[in-house]
Amino acid sequence: MNSDELKALLEAVQSNQVSIDEAFHSLKQLPFQDLGFAKIDHHRELRQGYPEVIYCAGKTPGQVKSIIELMLSRGNNILGTKATDEMYQEVLTVSDKAVFHPLAKTITIQQRPPIQSSTYIAVVTGGTSDIPVAEEAAITAEILGNQVKRVYDVGVAGIHRLFAHLELIRGARVIVAVAGMEGALASVVGGLVDKPVIAVPTSVGYGANFGGLAALLSMLNSCASGTAVVNIDNGFGAGYMASMINQL
Amino acid sequence: MNSDELKALLEAVQSNQVSIDEAFHSLKQLPFQDLGFAKIDHHRELRQGYPEVIYCAGKTPGQVKSIIELMLSRGNNILGTKATDEMYQEVLTVSDKAVFHPLAKTITIQQRPPIQSSTYIAVVTGGTSDIPVAEEAAITAEILGNQVKRVYDVGVAGIHRLFAHLELIRGARVIVAVAGMEGALASVVGGLVDKPVIAVPTSVGYGANFGGLAALLSMLNSCASGTAVVNIDNGFGAGYMASMINQL
Amino acid sequence: MNSDELKALLEAVQSNQVSIDEAFHSLKQLPFQDLGFAKIDHHRELRQGYPEVIYCAGKTPGQVKSIIELMLSRGNNILGTKATDEMYQEVLTVSDKAVFHPLAKTITIQQRPPIQSSTYIAVVTGGTSDIPVAEEAAITAEILGNQVKRVYDVGVAGIHRLFAHLELIRGARVIVAVAGMEGALASVVGGLVDKPVIAVPTSVGYGANFGGLAALLSMLNSCASGTAVVNIDNGFGAGYMASMINQL
Amino acid sequence: MNSDELKALLEAVQSNQVSIDEAFHSLKQLPFQDLGFAKIDHHRELRQGYPEVIYCAGKTPGQVKSIIELMLSRGNNILGTKATDEMYQEVLTVSDKAVFHPLAKTITIQQRPPIQSSTYIAVVTGGTSDIPVAEEAAITAEILGNQVKRVYDVGVAGIHRLFAHLELIRGARVIVAVAGMEGALASVVGGLVDKPVIAVPTSVGYGANFGGLAALLSMLNSCASGTAVVNIDNGFGAGYMASMINQL
Amino acid sequence: MNSDELKALLEAVQSNQVSIDEAFHSLKQLPFQDLGFAKIDHHRELRQGYPEVIYCAGKTPGQVKSIIELMLSRGNNILGTKATDEMYQEVLTVSDKAVFHPLAKTITIQQRPPIQSSTYIAVVTGGTSDIPVAEEAAITAEILGNQVKRVYDVGVAGIHRLFAHLELIRGARVIVAVAGMEGALASVVGGLVDKPVIAVPTSVGYGANFGGLAALLSMLNSCASGTAVVNIDNGFGAGYMASMINQL
Amino acid sequence: MNSDELKALLEAVQSNQVSIDEAFHSLKQLPFQDLGFAKIDHHRELRQGYPEVIYCAGKTPGQVKSIIELMLSRGNNILGTKATDEMYQEVLTVSDKAVFHPLAKTITIQQRPPIQSSTYIAVVTGGTSDIPVAEEAAITAEILGNQVKRVYDVGVAGIHRLFAHLELIRGARVIVAVAGMEGALASVVGGLVDKPVIAVPTSVGYGANFGGLAALLSMLNSCASGTAVVNIDNGFGAGYMASMINQL
Amino acid sequence: MNSDELKALLEAVQSNQVSIDEAFHSLKQLPFQDLGFAKIDHHRELRQGYPEVIYCAGKTPGQVKSIIELMLSRGNNILGTKATDEMYQEVLTVSDKAVFHPLAKTITIQQRPPIQSSTYIAVVTGGTSDIPVAEEAAITAEILGNQVKRVYDVGVAGIHRLFAHLELIRGARVIVAVAGMEGALASVVGGLVDKPVIAVPTSVGYGANFGGLAALLSMLNSCASGTAVVNIDNGFGAGYMASMINQL
Amino acid sequence: MNSDELKALLEAVQSNQVSIDEAFHSLKQLPFQDLGFAKIDHHRELRQGYPEVIYCAGKTPGQVKSIIELMLSRGNNILGTKATDEMYQEVLTVSDKAVFHPLAKTITIQQRPPIQSSTYIAVVTGGTSDIPVAEEAAITAEILGNQVKRVYDVGVAGIHRLFAHLELIRGARVIVAVAGMEGALASVVGGLVDKPVIAVPTSVGYGANFGGLAALLSMLNSCASGTAVVNIDNGFGAGYMASMINQL
Repeated sequence: MNSDELKALLEAVQSNQVSIDEAFHSLKQLPFQDLGFAKIDHHRELRQGYPEVIYCAGKTPGQVKSIIELMLSRGNNILGTKATDEMYQEVLTVSDKAVFHPLAKTITIQQRPPIQSSTYIAVVTGGTSDIPVAEEAAITAEILGNQVKRVYDVGVAGIHRLFAHLELIRGARVIVAVAGMEGALASVVGGLVDKPVIAVPTSVGYGANFGGLAALLSMLNSCASGTAVVNIDNGFGAGYMASMINQL
Repeated sequence: MNSDELKALLEAVQSNQVSIDEAFHSLKQLPFQDLGFAKIDHHRELRQGYPEVIYCAGKTPGQVKSIIELMLSRGNNILGTKATDEMYQEVLTVSDKAVFHPLAKTITIQQRPPIQSSTYIAVVTGGTSDIPVAEEAAITAEILGNQVKRVYDVGVAGIHRLFAHLELIRGARVIVAVAGMEGALASVVGGLVDKPVIAVPTSVGYGANFGGLAALLSMLNSCASGTAVVNIDNGFGAGYMASMINQL
Repeated sequence: MNSDELKALLEAVQSNQVSIDEAFHSLKQLPFQDLGFAKIDHHRELRQGYPEVIYCAGKTPGQVKSIIELMLSRGNNILGTKATDEMYQEVLTVSDKAVFHPLAKTITIQQRPPIQSSTYIAVVTGGTSDIPVAEEAAITAEILGNQVKRVYDVGVAGIHRLFAHLELIRGARVIVAVAGMEGALASVVGGLVDKPVIAVPTSVGYGANFGGLAALLSMLNSCASGTAVVNIDNGFGAGYMASMINQL
Repeated sequence: MNSDELKALLEAVQSNQVSIDEAFHSLKQLPFQDLGFAKIDHHRELRQGYPEVIYCAGKTPGQVKSIIELMLSRGNNILGTKATDEMYQEVLTVSDKAVFHPLAKTITIQQRPPIQSSTYIAVVTGGTSDIPVAEEAAITAEILGNQVKRVYDVGVAGIHRLFAHLELIRGARVIVAVAGMEGALASVVGGLVDKPVIAVPTSVGYGANFGGLAALLSMLNSCASGTAVVNIDNGFGAGYMASMINQL
Repeated sequence: MNSDELKALLEAVQSNQVSIDEAFHSLKQLPFQDLGFAKIDHHRELRQGYPEVIYCAGKTPGQVKSIIELMLSRGNNILGTKATDEMYQEVLTVSDKAVFHPLAKTITIQQRPPIQSSTYIAVVTGGTSDIPVAEEAAITAEILGNQVKRVYDVGVAGIHRLFAHLELIRGARVIVAVAGMEGALASVVGGLVDKPVIAVPTSVGYGANFGGLAALLSMLNSCASGTAVVNIDNGFGAGYMASMINQL
Repeated sequence: MNSDELKALLEAVQSNQVSIDEAFHSLKQLPFQDLGFAKIDHHRELRQGYPEVIYCAGKTPGQVKSIIELMLSRGNNILGTKATDEMYQEVLTVSDKAVFHPLAKTITIQQRPPIQSSTYIAVVTGGTSDIPVAEEAAITAEILGNQVKRVYDVGVAGIHRLFAHLELIRGARVIVAVAGMEGALASVVGGLVDKPVIAVPTSVGYGANFGGLAALLSMLNSCASGTAVVNIDNGFGAGYMASMINQL
Repeated sequence: MNSDELKALLEAVQSNQVSIDEAFHSLKQLPFQDLGFAKIDHHRELRQGYPEVIYCAGKTPGQVKSIIELMLSRGNNILGTKATDEMYQEVLTVSDKAVFHPLAKTITIQQRPPIQSSTYIAVVTGGTSDIPVAEEAAITAEILGNQVKRVYDVGVAGIHRLFAHLELIRGARVIVAVAGMEGALASVVGGLVDKPVIAVPTSVGYGANFGGLAALLSMLNSCASGTAVVNIDNGFGAGYMASMINQL
Repeated sequence: MNSDELKALLEAVQSNQVSIDEAFHSLKQLPFQDLGFAKIDHHRELRQGYPEVIYCAGKTPGQVKSIIELMLSRGNNILGTKATDEMYQEVLTVSDKAVFHPLAKTITIQQRPPIQSSTYIAVVTGGTSDIPVAEEAAITAEILGNQVKRVYDVGVAGIHRLFAHLELIRGARVIVAVAGMEGALASVVGGLVDKPVIAVPTSVGYGANFGGLAALLSMLNSCASGTAVVNIDNGFGAGYMASMINQL
């Protein structure tokens, strides 16, 4: 409920169009829907074209289907993250437009025509093993209506590969830098461009990597300005943040 | 050196205006200046109005003065972070325009007229102890030419204080959320606005806070989309990132 | 053995009703029973209506059955935590009153009529993935004779969902707040109510969550007064503590 | 603002006693007061007799005095934690009733007659070095209107000292167990009583104690039911939680 | 030193090329045998009755059999730790005296008559889940020729169970205290007896237990004198150390 | 109170020499003395010749003096650990026999003639910086009536220095191995002798030493059998444990 | 592109043999090849005889085959690390010279005649469980053209086994010391030789080993000069580094 | 082995009691000198020109002087690390050739003419704050007889500064890369050169840097081959290792 709606409600009370009891309950109401095991939040869909997002991990295929079924009726795009093929099969029974992206482990349903921005987001990875996380970021950004350019396997061990794509990376409005191991990619990219960099540490590596901690700490301590970090392996978060920035 | 300059250089070689040896050295050259103990990077100042930044920690007052003296001649704004009053006294000997912000521990020198953006950045803190880090972010953003609105001491322990300023926070183009202890402010703000949130964990707290680790982990695991994190107590990094986003 | 019993025993010695040797052994005796692999502690059952609790993890189905069989004869309610369906099948062979709660992974046997308190405990979760831990807390509290009200999936990413149930939460005598990821729920609830909050971090999340560490540290550093924390995923501990407080 | 007040406000709008604009602002208003550097939260004082609490660490003596001066006018009891003698000298200039507790590092001002509960809270420590944290808990509980009994230096290395005071501990309505080093006191007390135990790890110790981490982990993993934990050295939090429980 | 070298050395003594003292020192040197993938160390077996120990983890059943076969010829007792039933089946093909202890996951072969000491070692556990580690300690101590008394499931949550066996524990020459969760057992036992206590943290527990870290730190910080700690789950190490002490 | 005393007390009750009330209180009584801020535990002094130990850290010089004054009257030896010269000056006012060991930071008062054991304890260090911790161990062992031989600065970086003293080390009944940095000394000594080794990690080192964590983990994971570990820098604990073993 | 090539290119521009556009693209070009999912870096193969290395973990057998197929045509030796037998079967279809080393989990293809150095690298392990990591180092060094001598199972628990091979170890030009558990081997070897030691911590161990952290910290804190460390279980990295040093 | 023993050994050779070979082996054994608080190891000085090294931290100025005085008589070069100016003043009283390097905190005494190698070691730093650690490495390498070239303040945030010196770096025989914060320098340098890189993490940074842990983990996980790591801030260790490699 925004300020205009609040004032309208109060005016309706003043003019007796709305009773005090009704207003009392409206003022406590907020836009979500109760499925029992989940409370679907329609807050963000109010903005036209914004997809609804489901974090599928820890839900049964049936629950994922039920939630998506409910969302479908609103006509928005839909994004399911950390999904499985089994969930996808269930979702297909309620929408044949559903697409499964196996690397990114995401389900997307495009119900509205894509509103492509003229600017683009660059998604860059250090190695090939970082691609699944990068794809989660890229597909998240795409379903949110952004143009995405992928630059994969350009880590600092062979830094000339990065330089060969520097023009493309510099042309982006915002950059998502995905890297495991020592995560130096984020610092190097951050030092070469003047655009915001969303750094995504991945859990790729072994030994003193400690499940992505090495890359995480590296990125948090980046000596390059204009870098901020999301959780380890959180491609979705990076794609969402990049989209927010790209669409400002 | 951008593409146009590279092509211009090659044309000069072709037309013998520039010798091969000169070109050879130019192609290896990049714009920095060597002070012996430091290599000043003028790369970013090339963009009009961008200030030059010095990380003062670990430098002597004399070194800080020398670096700033060199920078002054270029006519840009100057920002010194993690500075002391003693450093400031030295800097005053080369520029009486220098201002010291004791809470933020920064020195600023405004040489160009401020280019205020119409949009603004909101800097929000959980408690009063988080203010020094917030001020570092706010002053960084201001010297970079942004309008900043401060909303301090609105942590989640008394969440009504936050709600009283929600309209102001929602009006910002980008939000810097600064909090120590459990750092829940970032998640709550992130859940209430549809703007990018730069979360800054602070080392405020004690016991199992572990120097800001609690707030850092909390912010990295935020269940609110559209949040990215900088290093503990890194107000400068947040202000810089917010400025980049605000000026897109 | 309480003070009255101790005095009675000494009087019996003085009056020669009890020999010194008998007294000597009684004074060393305490109420437990030895099964070889386990020493069943009947200490707490002495209080009428209190259930006996078995931590089933790490025990064989046969061991669980044996322990429960022994307990059944005392007529008390029984609670088995961290149980499996396989254990439940074994237990059914000695008591057809046994109920298995698959989400909470608990077995309960209600032998005494429930002594429902008029006050209630609110069990609140941040997300749907926190429900198994919340159910362990809720069922523990119920078998201990408490009324429980569940408020699930009201995390701070959509804080209006929490506010919609605030009245119910504020009406509780004690609140169990269950959350993974950044665990901000505990602070927000703690800041909104004036009742004791038992915070339960869960291991829900990934990356820099580190198996629940993020939520644990967040909750320990909560800026809201009136909050105390139990171990990660320790729904039983929270339910037990909440029951103790509710029944004061 | 509670439900009655909300309805009253809406009725005033309906009857035109309050303009829509006034109502609009009231609905956003909540009871706090802005000192510039701090927003004093009067929310909790609304309940009669409840003291106002200031976390003094990180504030100047002048700021502490200003905040307390403002609070004094409301006639409530006042508690300042993590205070210094220097702060106390400042506070004396605005209230000669102020008392400084050097061990607990707290300032208290008793403005209302104490409302002593008939039940009591037992505050127990493992060693003498844990006493400052215990005193912070005890004085917090006392200014909140509770009777407190102290049982200090009864750690498990000489467990007979604990047993000698067991009757007193068992007579409490709630127990605060304060211990550093290995923190075993909480488990032992928890195993001997049937009352809620608030465990407070302290940073007392050295080496692999890691600033209280050993005691913290020990208490979180306590095998005794009915125990919950607050942050390391958080005597205030424990006293506040114990008071909440004791006054139910 | 192989047999050729031994002969050469003795010939040198005979011919006065090497003094008796020099030969004496040479003869104490270096008795081991090379299997290619392992160098069997016969150093300790020289002391009569001392068993040879194999750490079976990470070896194939065939390798375990080969090593044991080689050892058997020397007539000593044999102990294999971290063994599997599959390894045991292989070992049976070379010695029908081999015994497998499934809880302790050890293989023992008693070739010499047991030399029972008159004193005994008490092995004490906090819970039933700690028994496998305790059994590894107990069986290690037994094959090394010690009398062992087991006192299991006497953790501090029901401390009267411990007191009921205190006389037996106090009668031991050295005590092995095995506990997971918060590991308080070691401190409580250490505070009640005047004998050396070898504390063994186990990985039993969950959440903030962190694989035994909680118990480990707890035991290292024990406020009871006369306690030393071995690695998490290292029953063998505790049994070996206890045996060394018992046989002094 | 031992079994004989318990029976004697009960017989006194039976024969009316002791009233029930007196017996009731005696049975709750255990031998400690209450100084207000500390409860002196005389439990262990009951064994002839055993010194009384005060952990001085965190106590005022006056408190240390008061505690020692109380202890002196019992005629036992006294050991104060983690003491300062200032404390020593205070103690001198009540006993001119007091000796201060500045390296070990201990105060000793020898009231009984030393009961030297014929066997000895070897205290070995890796470097010279480990000597203060080693001295705490050595002096603790000496005041407890043990003969101690010191072998300092024989770390594995120059392993020939260790071998030059191997005979002396092997001749000990129990060995205390004190080392910082990587703590390899404990493993090497443990592999060379057949005596119990008490390993003491020290906080000597820098960088990834993390306050002694490196040496602690190294010693806990020692591949040498017959090693147990005490807390970082806990020379007292090692000396006490070694004494217990040496005097068996 | 080295300096000579750069000058040659510029001369070609000057003489109009190469157009400006061609030069522009060449200057951005660097030698790698794009497979879509991976960018093969031929940079290092330019040096004669240098093998090409594939990190196989996280790739499908088909991807490994494709990459190797591409590499084969260049005639270099090939090394695949962290490979599986299933990958090997795929690789056999494109090269029957491929060899699989099951312990080291590496695939090698020797296309050029081996260029054996006269000096050798010694690869030393503490235990038999460290052999797989040691083999990865040894095979890496061998395919890179080095002579390798293996000395396995000579850990410090039986230090005489190490001394028996000391002459061979001292004869090496560089030593790779591989050890898990407490990792003391690196310090002991480092103290006995005057050659560079590359220390490889392994994850062998359990409990407070924390996946190799104990050995890692131990090696980083080694008191022996001339030691540097690679990641836990990183046999390849150690073999590569040792080869670089050996071939200087 | 002292001089008497040396004479005795030589007499035995002369009289044919000991063979030349035996004497040869004896003479390689055990040269150290006992100062009481330290055992000076002359083992390494036997190689001509090798300096003797003292780790001064934790020693008194007097002890440092005594050790150096003893060493001076042997005519070798001397290196004291982690020294203070106060120590230097003491050392000046025994040698006026002593030089103090305040940034590197080292004392050097050049007694032999420097034996400069023709090859050189490059010491590279990320920032100016890393210079003290780099200087410790450089001066260590120089006193050990190496030519050193310094390239400071070329971190990846302005990567063109690094490229401007790439030729010099590539010309080195071995490279020492010193960096704090995220430590990406080591990976970038390692990816650009084909020489062994010794990476030195520094504790420069703040927040989630955790005293150098971020740089340490980053360097251990470097995706560039040919890199090994020494302890945080261990400039001496890196310089020593680099010297060993350079002088092969």
